[in-house]
Formats: sequence, C-alpha cells, structure tokens
Amino acid sequence: MDAIRWQGDSLALLDQTRLPVEEVWNDYTDYRAVAEAIRRLVVRGAPAIGVAAAYAVCLAALEFQTLEPRDFRAAMDKAARALAASRPTAVNLFWSLDRMKLTLSAAGGDAGAIPVLIREAEAIHREDIAMNRKIGRCGAELVPPGARILTHCNAGAIATGGYGTALGVVRAAHAAGHVEMVYCDETRPLLQGARLTAWELVKDGIPATLITDSMAASLMAQGKIDLIFLGCDRMARNGDFANKIGTYSLAVLANYHGIPFYTVLPSSTIDMSIPDGSHIVIEERAPEEVTHFAGVQTAPEGVLVHNPAFDVTPHRLLTGIVTEKGVIHPPFTERLAELFG
Amino acid sequence: MDAIRWQGDSLALLDQTRLPVEEVWNDYTDYRAVAEAIRRLVVRGAPAIGVAAAYAVCLAALEFQTLEPRDFRAAMDKAARALAASRPTAVNLFWSLDRMKLTLSAAGGDAGAIPVLIREAEAIHREDIAMNRKIGRCGAELVPPGARILTHCNAGAIATGGYGTALGVVRAAHAAGHVEMVYCDETRPLLQGARLTAWELVKDGIPATLITDSMAASLMAQGKIDLIFLGCDRMARNGDFANKIGTYSLAVLANYHGIPFYTVLPSSTIDMSIPDGSHIVIEERAPEEVTHFAGVQTAPEGVLVHNPAFDVTPHRLLTGIVTEKGVIHPPFTERLAELFG
Repeated sequence: MDAIRWQGDSLALLDQTRLPVEEVWNDYTDYRAVAEAIRRLVVRGAPAIGVAAAYAVCLAALEFQTLEPRDFRAAMDKAARALAASRPTAVNLFWSLDRMKLTLSAAGGDAGAIPVLIREAEAIHREDIAMNRKIGRCGAELVPPGARILTHCNAGAIATGGYGTALGVVRAAHAAGHVEMVYCDETRPLLQGARLTAWELVKDGIPATLITDSMAASLMAQGKIDLIFLGCDRMARNGDFANKIGTYSLAVLANYHGIPFYTVLPSSTIDMSIPDGSHIVIEERAPEEVTHFAGVQTAPEGVLVHNPAFDVTPHRLLTGIVTEKGVIHPPFTERLAELFG
Repeated sequence: MDAIRWQGDSLALLDQTRLPVEEVWNDYTDYRAVAEAIRRLVVRGAPAIGVAAAYAVCLAALEFQTLEPRDFRAAMDKAARALAASRPTAVNLFWSLDRMKLTLSAAGGDAGAIPVLIREAEAIHREDIAMNRKIGRCGAELVPPGARILTHCNAGAIATGGYGTALGVVRAAHAAGHVEMVYCDETRPLLQGARLTAWELVKDGIPATLITDSMAASLMAQGKIDLIFLGCDRMARNGDFANKIGTYSLAVLANYHGIPFYTVLPSSTIDMSIPDGSHIVIEERAPEEVTHFAGVQTAPEGVLVHNPAFDVTPHRLLTGIVTEKGVIHPPFTERLAELFG
C-alpha cells in the first residue's frame, strides 16, 4: 500500500481527502501544485510530506532546466521556499528539502544535476519504506499475543513512503499473529483515523474498531487497551514531541491508566536543533474544519473556534520511542544524543 | 430559551436534530411519536426527557379518554412502558413516569384524572425550571471573576425544562459578570456541543469558543481552563455518574491538571436505588452515527464500531456536585444520603 509514485517525469499522489469512498490518483508536473496538495492534505503525514517534497524539487528542476544556471539556482531556491511554506510543523519536510539542496549543490547546482536529484528523491522514498519496515520489526517486539492496540490519526502506509510508522508496528505485530484488535480514534476534525487508518486496516484484513476520540478513556478504564502506538510530526532533542491534536490527551489518559504509550518515528522526524517542545511551531488551521462537515454547517454563526492541528506531549508521558535504531527508553535526552546526535 | 411547550392538548418540541441551522418546532398529539422523538433525539437531555415524557402521558390520557376505565388503565400502562423503553440511561425519565403514574392512581385512575395529570406535568416542567435557576445560583458561587469554563455536550436550556443545569450555572455566572470564555467540546458523534451548546451561548451573547473533544487537554495544559461544569444522566448513591461519552475522559484530564470538575444536576437525576456506577445501563447507539455524517460516509465498509452514548465517571474524580440544595462535596455517599435519602 502506498500513496506516492514517481513516474519518471511526473508525480502521482493518492488523493487522501477523497478516502475512504474513492481511490483517486492525481498527476502532478508543477511543484506549486504539490505544495498546494500538501497544504490541502491531499498528501499528509510527516514522512510522506518529506517524500512528496523531494519529488516536487525534481519537478521544479525539470520545469527550470532550460534556464541559465544563475536563474536556475534562483528558481530552485524559490521553489524550495514555497515548498517549505506549505506546512509549518513537520520537520521531515525541512529535512528533505535540505537534503535535496545539498544534493543539488554537490552535483554542480545546475540542470545537469537533474538525474542525480531524481535518484536522491527516489533514495529518500526507498529509505523511508526500508526504515518503516525496520521500525515495524523493532516495535512489534513490544506487542504481546492477543494485544489490543489503540492508535490516533494516521501514521500508516499512506502517511509515509509506504508501510507506515505506528501502523508499520501494527502490520509487523499482526504478521506475527499478535494483534487481537486495533482501536482507531476517528481523529477530529479531519477524521484521518476513520477515513485513512480504518481504511488501511480493513484493506489489510487487520481487525479494526472505530471510536470517537472521546471514547478512548472509557475503553482504557475497562481494561480493553494494552498498548498505544502513534506517530510524530516533530520531536525535540529531549523527547517532547508534536503530533496530531489529541495525542497529548491520550498520553495523560494512558499515564493515568498505566498503559504503555509509544510514539513511532523515523529519525528524520527528530529535530536535534530544538531543546524542547516549547520551540515547536503549532499550525492553526481554518475554523471551517470544525464548524462545517462535508459542506454542512454544524455550528452557529458567531461562535469562536480554536483549531490547532497538533499538540505537544512532554517526554515524561512517553513510555518509549520506536525508531529504526530500536526502541528508546528514558532518559531520552541522553539516549537520543547517543543515537542521533 | 426553551424547547418544550405544552399547548393545552398538544405538545410542541423544538427539533434539536435540525439545530443550529434551522429552528423548527414539531407538534405532537400521539405519545408514540413523542417516544420516537426521544429515541431520535429531537428532544434530549435527561431533565428534558423527563418533562417531555410527562406531557406524553397526558397525550396518552387524552387519546384513551373514551375507553372503559379498565381499558383506559391498561392503555395507560402500555403507554408508560413504551415511553420508558425510549432511552435506557437517563433516570429522570423513569422518575417522571413514576410520578405521573402515582398522580393518575391518586386521582382515581380513570379519564377523570386528565386535568390533574396535565397540572402535574406542568408542575414537573415548572419545578424543573425553578430548580435550574436555583442550581444556577448555587453553582455560580463557585465561579471566580474572569473564569474560563469548559463544558461538554449540552446541559442547557434545551436539555431541561428551561435555563439549563451546567449552562444554568454558566448563565448565572455570566449574569454576575464572571465569565470570560466558555469552551464547548463539540461532543462527537452527534455534536451536541457544536450544534446546541454553542447555539445557546451565541444566542445569549455569552463568549463561546468551539473545540473538538480532543483539544480540551492541551487547553488545560496551557492553563486556559479554570473550571469544568457538565451535566449528568444518572447518578448512583455514591456519586458515580453517567453522562455523555467523553465525560470520564475530561474527569481524568481535569484531575491530572488540578482543575475543579463539577457535575450539575437536579435531584431527580440521582438514583438512590443503585449503590454505584457499575449498575448503570449504558446505551449503545447505531454505528452509523460514527461512520456517516449528514449522509456522507466517513469510514470504510467492514470496520467495526463502538458507540456507547455515555460513560461512567467514578465519584473520586468529582470535585463536587451542584444541586438545587447546594454544592455537595465528598464524602458523597454520606452527603447524598443526608440530602436526598
């Protein structure tokens, strides 16, 4: 299962805004349209945004290949800035754009670098999938037979290059026969849990139960949740991390009920340049995401709306971090520095 | 503001399923249609269900008034049973039906009792409003100037005979100039917070901010919530209580963040016949409430759904209970027995 395909000179993206009812792939040859697709959540999920942005850099290079070298470099810089501005929170986006910029410079900085750029984007994509499979194997070791797992939002195959981070762990644990049930928070306001995670799980034949976000606590109180795995959009070097709004709520609830709580991520999600979560920019999205649904008005005119896309969970509420280098336990600052410093 | 009006020989209900976009009143002369309206949530909220059911008993009596006394009594019993079966959790429904049955018996048990029945239903309605105003005054004393209050679902004027329980406290505190902001959980799956509470607050000019249920925790962490007031559908004699799904989640979160957490109720909501929350029947509602919205499919075919309408919050997470007899603090078993035993 995947949502991003490079087609030699164009990029195909599975339109995630139309799932689960329709599976529509869009073709992109313009990097600006890819930036817009990231903004509109046609492609979403921190690792997937990184992969899509790398391919978008290739589209920009193809578009500008007939320009003079100096104009080419200026146009490429502008494209990178436009892509970087598409969404503010996920660090993989900036990581991926930096890596493409370095590649371009190392390959001469002109249109001659295009084949190298494409190979690099494909490498970012391939490495992400390989990393997810590794992460899945590491995380699956935490999952006992008969496990009932809770997840939030979508950290699945379509949120990454393929296979998934949190859902990669679920997939690997399911392959080992250890998954009794996956409870999916629907994840308001945009319902990524209902529309995307439930869709991935049903498609892969993994037992899935959909709940509203507010039901998780009562399942925990009833002893029906054994473990929680979810994704990460940016982690500071002390282990504080931003993820889909509602993650912090689950972290507190898991802590209260004594349920192991893991975030699952490739190391490209870790931002060693920031000391803690207070430095993470949280994207505020449009009020209409909360006041309307499928074009139907669900709230009165005149009400104020608070709609942050993410919240920050302090590292002290984390049981562990599942990465491609294994599962990291506290103290996180020291362990993260050792592995990724 | 109200949602229930007796019109001499028919009952008018504000159709709450059509708020906030349309304000439509439906007329009822058939008690069966009122039972269906309760089931479909045209009228909802534990105290409002009690009031509507009392009037529905009057409609049944009017319908059966030409029957022989024995047939009249049998038909009235059947009507009461049908009304009692409309929703299983709110105890006010059973309390109200019992009171109407006692009234009917005391007034001779035949059609001659109709004027007495109507007066009794009107008394239940009037007493509920008076009680809410009393509750509001008691609860408002807990609210300091500049308070930022969080509420869940709708415990407002339209969930009661009028004025509201939790929103009654908000109204009284706002009248005293003490409310800076009311944060409304949208309350999935049926969005009573977005559709009803936000609508009531905007209509009354009380500052209101709508959030998704999963955002409450991060507001608490940011120090933006000073107090939580919410309703109650049934309370056991030890203070454990059932309320809209998501209430338990907020109780745990409030406890973690040291935020005062109050449930607000008229004493008819207290079921002294059950020792604790494990005896409360929790209604499981249709999966389509979670998998579809306004006719739009939001989850894949084949996914399982868990959709309890309520959860149970243990009394140890409650700061206090706001009632018409004042604010009750622990130990709840002893204090409830003293006041309502």
